[in-house]
Amino acid sequence: MNTSGRFFRVTTFGESHGPAIGAVVDGCPSGISLSASDIQPFLDRRKPGGPLSSPRAESDEVEILSGVFEGLTAGTPIALLIRNRDVRSGDYEALRDVFRPGHADYSYLQKYGLRDHRGGGRSSGRETAARVAAGAVAVRVLGGFGISVSGSVLSVRGVSDPGRFEEEVAAARARGDSVGGIVEVRAAGVPAGLGSPVFGKLDAAIAGAMMGIGAVKGVEIGEGFGAARLYGSENNDGMDRTGFLSNHAGGVLGGISTGQEIVVRLAVKPTPSIALLQRTVDTAGAEREISIGGRHDPCIAFRLVPVAEAMLALVLVDAALEERAYGGCVPE
Amino acid sequence: MNTSGRFFRVTTFGESHGPAIGAVVDGCPSGISLSASDIQPFLDRRKPGGPLSSPRAESDEVEILSGVFEGLTAGTPIALLIRNRDVRSGDYEALRDVFRPGHADYSYLQKYGLRDHRGGGRSSGRETAARVAAGAVAVRVLGGFGISVSGSVLSVRGVSDPGRFEEEVAAARARGDSVGGIVEVRAAGVPAGLGSPVFGKLDAAIAGAMMGIGAVKGVEIGEGFGAARLYGSENNDGMDRTGFLSNHAGGVLGGISTGQEIVVRLAVKPTPSIALLQRTVDTAGAEREISIGGRHDPCIAFRLVPVAEAMLALVLVDAALEERAYGGCVPE
Amino acid sequence: MNTSGRFFRVTTFGESHGPAIGAVVDGCPSGISLSASDIQPFLDRRKPGGPLSSPRAESDEVEILSGVFEGLTAGTPIALLIRNRDVRSGDYEALRDVFRPGHADYSYLQKYGLRDHRGGGRSSGRETAARVAAGAVAVRVLGGFGISVSGSVLSVRGVSDPGRFEEEVAAARARGDSVGGIVEVRAAGVPAGLGSPVFGKLDAAIAGAMMGIGAVKGVEIGEGFGAARLYGSENNDGMDRTGFLSNHAGGVLGGISTGQEIVVRLAVKPTPSIALLQRTVDTAGAEREISIGGRHDPCIAFRLVPVAEAMLALVLVDAALEERAYGGCVPE
Amino acid sequence: MNTSGRFFRVTTFGESHGPAIGAVVDGCPSGISLSASDIQPFLDRRKPGGPLSSPRAESDEVEILSGVFEGLTAGTPIALLIRNRDVRSGDYEALRDVFRPGHADYSYLQKYGLRDHRGGGRSSGRETAARVAAGAVAVRVLGGFGISVSGSVLSVRGVSDPGRFEEEVAAARARGDSVGGIVEVRAAGVPAGLGSPVFGKLDAAIAGAMMGIGAVKGVEIGEGFGAARLYGSENNDGMDRTGFLSNHAGGVLGGISTGQEIVVRLAVKPTPSIALLQRTVDTAGAEREISIGGRHDPCIAFRLVPVAEAMLALVLVDAALEERAYGGCVPE
Repeated sequence: MNTSGRFFRVTTFGESHGPAIGAVVDGCPSGISLSASDIQPFLDRRKPGGPLSSPRAESDEVEILSGVFEGLTAGTPIALLIRNRDVRSGDYEALRDVFRPGHADYSYLQKYGLRDHRGGGRSSGRETAARVAAGAVAVRVLGGFGISVSGSVLSVRGVSDPGRFEEEVAAARARGDSVGGIVEVRAAGVPAGLGSPVFGKLDAAIAGAMMGIGAVKGVEIGEGFGAARLYGSENNDGMDRTGFLSNHAGGVLGGISTGQEIVVRLAVKPTPSIALLQRTVDTAGAEREISIGGRHDPCIAFRLVPVAEAMLALVLVDAALEERAYGGCVPE
Repeated sequence: MNTSGRFFRVTTFGESHGPAIGAVVDGCPSGISLSASDIQPFLDRRKPGGPLSSPRAESDEVEILSGVFEGLTAGTPIALLIRNRDVRSGDYEALRDVFRPGHADYSYLQKYGLRDHRGGGRSSGRETAARVAAGAVAVRVLGGFGISVSGSVLSVRGVSDPGRFEEEVAAARARGDSVGGIVEVRAAGVPAGLGSPVFGKLDAAIAGAMMGIGAVKGVEIGEGFGAARLYGSENNDGMDRTGFLSNHAGGVLGGISTGQEIVVRLAVKPTPSIALLQRTVDTAGAEREISIGGRHDPCIAFRLVPVAEAMLALVLVDAALEERAYGGCVPE
Repeated sequence: MNTSGRFFRVTTFGESHGPAIGAVVDGCPSGISLSASDIQPFLDRRKPGGPLSSPRAESDEVEILSGVFEGLTAGTPIALLIRNRDVRSGDYEALRDVFRPGHADYSYLQKYGLRDHRGGGRSSGRETAARVAAGAVAVRVLGGFGISVSGSVLSVRGVSDPGRFEEEVAAARARGDSVGGIVEVRAAGVPAGLGSPVFGKLDAAIAGAMMGIGAVKGVEIGEGFGAARLYGSENNDGMDRTGFLSNHAGGVLGGISTGQEIVVRLAVKPTPSIALLQRTVDTAGAEREISIGGRHDPCIAFRLVPVAEAMLALVLVDAALEERAYGGCVPE
Repeated sequence: MNTSGRFFRVTTFGESHGPAIGAVVDGCPSGISLSASDIQPFLDRRKPGGPLSSPRAESDEVEILSGVFEGLTAGTPIALLIRNRDVRSGDYEALRDVFRPGHADYSYLQKYGLRDHRGGGRSSGRETAARVAAGAVAVRVLGGFGISVSGSVLSVRGVSDPGRFEEEVAAARARGDSVGGIVEVRAAGVPAGLGSPVFGKLDAAIAGAMMGIGAVKGVEIGEGFGAARLYGSENNDGMDRTGFLSNHAGGVLGGISTGQEIVVRLAVKPTPSIALLQRTVDTAGAEREISIGGRHDPCIAFRLVPVAEAMLALVLVDAALEERAYGGCVPE
C-alpha cells in the first residue's frame, strides 16, 4: 500500500537505485500557485550533506509532470519526478545475499520472494524524498488554511543540549557506530475540529504517519509517555475564558484538534548501517560477519526532520479537506 | 470515519447513552465457526467491575444479527449489537453545557456544532465495547493463522510492581484523583511478511490503531523510545542460523513482520473524570469549577488491555488477509 | 465489500431470513433533523404489496440506533435496524441443495463454500431495504443542496404504455412466468461540478451503483445506447446564452455534472423465481427440474424504483460532499 | 479521484499537452516477469493511425521507472511514464475560451475554476494511454490466473456488418461529422467466485469502469437491455450436469462470476469534435459558432477497444486478488 490519505492522496514510487523516485498527489484543490521552485527547498533540506550526514550526492531535482496549468494547480493529479543520479549500485553487490541487521532485507525477502538489494531498494530512506516533495505541496495548501509545521531534533542518544549534538554524532562515526535521537514536530494555526472519530482520529493518523517513517520506533503526542506517570489533576488541561490553561493534550482531544498547537515527538533508532562488525546470516542460512561501508548518516534524526514535517503536513491537509466536506453544515 | 481496516473492515456505531452500540465486520472469511459465546468472554473482560474500575453495571450482551449461518461465518457482514441498559443520563444533565477538562467535549462541539453530553456520547470509552466484540471475531480468524495476542498493565503512575497497582489506584480514588499507566500488548505466532510498505506498514497500522484508543498518548514498538538513547551496535538485532539474536525491533523491520514476537507499549493518560475541583468554562464562555461525580475508573489502563488486544488483533488480521491476496505469488 | 461511497459511506448487513437487516451511515453531516418517520415512507414504497408484487408481509419498521441526538444528526454513525418478521424459512427447505436458475445460488456457493439458502440469504432483494433506509438519509442531506431524485417504470417487456403494465404482469403471473422492464431515475437541482475524473466520475459512480442492484443488467445515461446510432452533429448538446440546447449527455460531461438534469435508465431482468418448470442441478451435480413457489414479484421493476432512487441519492450526496471538500478553493 | 481498484490500484496522471502522462500500479504481486516490451504492444494498438483514426503522431513509448528488479516485479509500485511528444498546443489557442459541445470544457471550468484547454487537458482521451499501459500489467497478472480479455467493435451507427465500418466512418468524416458505435469486450477463463456483494459486485465494478471511459454512455452485461423485453423463462440460464445451458447472465450472478464467459457491451457516443458548425458560448457568455479542426477520430469506438479491454482486465485482476485474500478459507 503506497498511498496515504483519503482526501489528499499521495502515492509514492521508486527504489533507491532504480531510474527514478516520485509521487502523485491526487486531491489537491485547484487554483493554488505551484512550481518546482516551491518544492525544491524542501528537498534541499532533506538532502545528504553537512558534517552530520551521508556523502551521497543527489541533486534531487524535482520535475512537475502534470496537474499544474499556467502556474496554478488544475485540480488534477500532480506527478512529481526525481531522477536518481548518483547510483553506485556496485557498492551493494557484496550485500546481495546478506541480511543487514536492523534493515528490511530479511522481511522484504520473506514477503516478496525477491528483493532489490541495491541500497535497500524500496525500503531505503531515499523514498522519503518523494514524501517530502508531496509534503511541500501540502504545505502550500496548508498555507491557505493558516497552518504551518516545524520540527527539530530534541536530543541525540539522550543528550538534549544541541551544542553537543555534532560531538555525539562525530564520536559515533569515529568508532564505526551510529546513534539514535528524538525529533519533535509541531503544527501551529490548526483550527479546532480537525480529525474524525473513531477510526479517523487526528492523533491516530499522526501516529500512523510518523511510525511509517523508517527508523521511527515510538510516537507520542503532548504529554505522551509522561502522562502515564501523572495524576489526572496534573494532566488535565483546565480552561478559563481565554482558553486552555496548559497543553498536556498536545492539541488533540477525543481525536479532534482543539485549536492548540499540535505537539508530536518521535523516537528515532540509530542508523542500522554501521562499520562495526555484526553477526548475521546470508540467504543460504550461512553465518556471516559484516561491516557495512558505503555512505550512511551516523544519526538519521537530522534528515528525518523534514520528512516528519512532510508527514505531519500530509495528515493535516487531509483532515482540513475532510472538515471542509462536512463542516459548517448543510442548510435545510 | 468509523471504519477501520481495508480487508477486515470494522465499522462501529453508537453513543454511550443511546439505544445501542455495535459493530459491523465486513471481510471475514467464510466457514469459521462463530457464536455469541465466542465473543462474550472478551466483552466480559472489558466490562466495568472489580476494585480497580467503575461501578456502571452493563451486561454487555452481544447479539449477532447477520453473517453467521448454521454456526459458520457466511462471508457476509457480521453485525454485532449491544444494547445500552444501565443508562443514567440524568447524571450528566449538570454537564450539558460545561466542558469537562481532558474530555472531548470542547473539540466535539467545535467540530459538530452540537454534542451528545450524556456520558460523552460517541467519545465515551463505551464505544470500545464494539471494538472488543469485533476484535473477538478477529481473534477467531487469527487462530486459523496460529496468531495470538495478549496484554497486561506494565506500570501505574510509574510504579511497575503489580503488587502495588491496587494500592496506587485506591490512593488516587481516595483523593478524588486518577492515575495513568503503561499497557503492553504482544502478538505471538505472527509469520514473517505481514505489512506493506510504504503507507501500509504493520508498525504504522499498529501505531494508528493504538493511538486511536481514547486515553492513549504514546505508542512504541520494540525498543521504542529507548532506541533513541542507544548506539546502532546495541540496537541492531543480529542473526545466526537459529534466527534473530534479540528483538529490539519488536517484530517489525521496514514495516514488515519478521516472524518474531510483536511487542507494543502504550502510554495511557490518567482518567480525565475526577472528583477534585477543576477550572473550566461553559458553552457560553463563563468560567466554572467542576467536580465530576458519576461512575468512573480511576485508572483506565486495566480496562484498556482488552481494547488494545482487540485493536492489535484487527490490525493483524487485516495484514494477514492482505498477505493472502498477494503472497506466494501468481503462477505464470 | 458491503460499504458504498467515500464521503457518505453506507454499510449494509443482513440476510433475508436472519434476525435483522440494516445499515450504518457514516459521514452524514451534523445538525440535520432526522427521525424514523423521515425514513419510513421510503421503506413503505419499497415494501411488497399491491397487485404487481409479492405477498410477503414485512412491516419494515426502522429503528435508529445511533447518530441522532435530540432530533438532529450528530455527525456520528447513524445505525438503522430493521428486524425480519415474516420469515417462513421452511418454504425454502426444499431448495437447500438446488441451484435456482437466474439466482446467485451457484455463484455464492462457489465463492463462500456454503450459502444461506433461505430466501437467497444475503443475495436477496430484501437487502435493498437497508439501502433504501440509508438512501432516505441521503435524500435529507440532498434536500439541503436543493437536489431531488425521482424514478418510474418506463416499460414492461417492451411495452411502454403504463396503462398496460398491470395487464402484462398479470399475464406473466398467470402462466407462472415473470417479465423484465426498464426503470428511469432522474435527479433535478444538481449543480455543475459534481464528480471527479478520472476514476471518480459521476456517471461511472452512477453506473456502478445501478448495476449493483440485483436484477439490473444494463445502465445508460442520457442518450445512452441510442448515441451509438447517431452522428456527432445529432448527439452534441449545443449551447446558447440561456444554457444547453438539449440534454443528450444526460447531465454529465467528462464525468462531471453540467447542471442539467441527470437522466439514467436501467434494464431490469425478469424475476428469476418462476413457477414454470426449469432444468437445473443440485449441489451433488444431479439434474433436477424445479418450480419455484413462494412469494415473488412477477416484475421486480416496480419495487426497484425506490431502490434506484436511493442509490442515485447515495451517489449524489457522496459527490456533493466531495465537492464541498475541494470546491471554491483555498485562499492564499 | 484518479485511483481505481482496491487491491490492484492504478493511479493515472497527466494532461494531453503537458510534459507526460503515466500510471502508478500499486498492488501487483511480486515475481512476475515484466518489461516495457510487454506493455508496448498494448499502447501500439491504442495509438492513432490507420484510416479510421486521428493523424496525431505519438510514439507512446513507455518507460518503467520502478517496481521491476532484474526483470521481475518486486511487489513495489510500478511507475509507468509516457512522454508527450507531438504537442501542437497552438492548434487549441482559438478554443481557449470556448466550450466545445459534447466535451468536458464547461463542466471542468465549473468544477475547477480553470481548465487546461490544450486538447482537453486531463479530460482528453489521451489519458487512456496510461490506463492501457496499466492494463497491460494487469493482463500479465491475469495470465497467471488463466484469464484473458478481448474486444471488438460490434456496430457503427447501427450498422453491424464489419465490411461497412470503414465506409460509414469515411462518409461521416467527409461531411465533417462523426459516428457512434457499440464495443463488446469479453473475458474468458474467469473462475467462479470473483466479485463481492453487495457493493463490490463484479458486474457493478465492470459497469463503473466502462462508464468511466470518456464517450461511453451505456453499459450492459449478458442479455443487457434485451432482458427487459424477455420472460423469466426465456432469460434464466438453466443448468445440466455439464454446466449452464445458456449465458444470458453474461457470466455474473448476484455480482459474482459463475465461471462462464464475461460479456459486456458499451455504447460509444460519436466523437464530439466535428468540423461541422456548432452553436456554443464562450466563457464570457457570448454566443459563438465553431468548427473544430485539429486531429480527431471520426469514430472513437475503434481506439476504445483496447481501453475497454484494459479496464476489464483491471477490474478482473482486482477481483482475483480479492478472492485470493478470502477464498479457500482459513484453517482452524
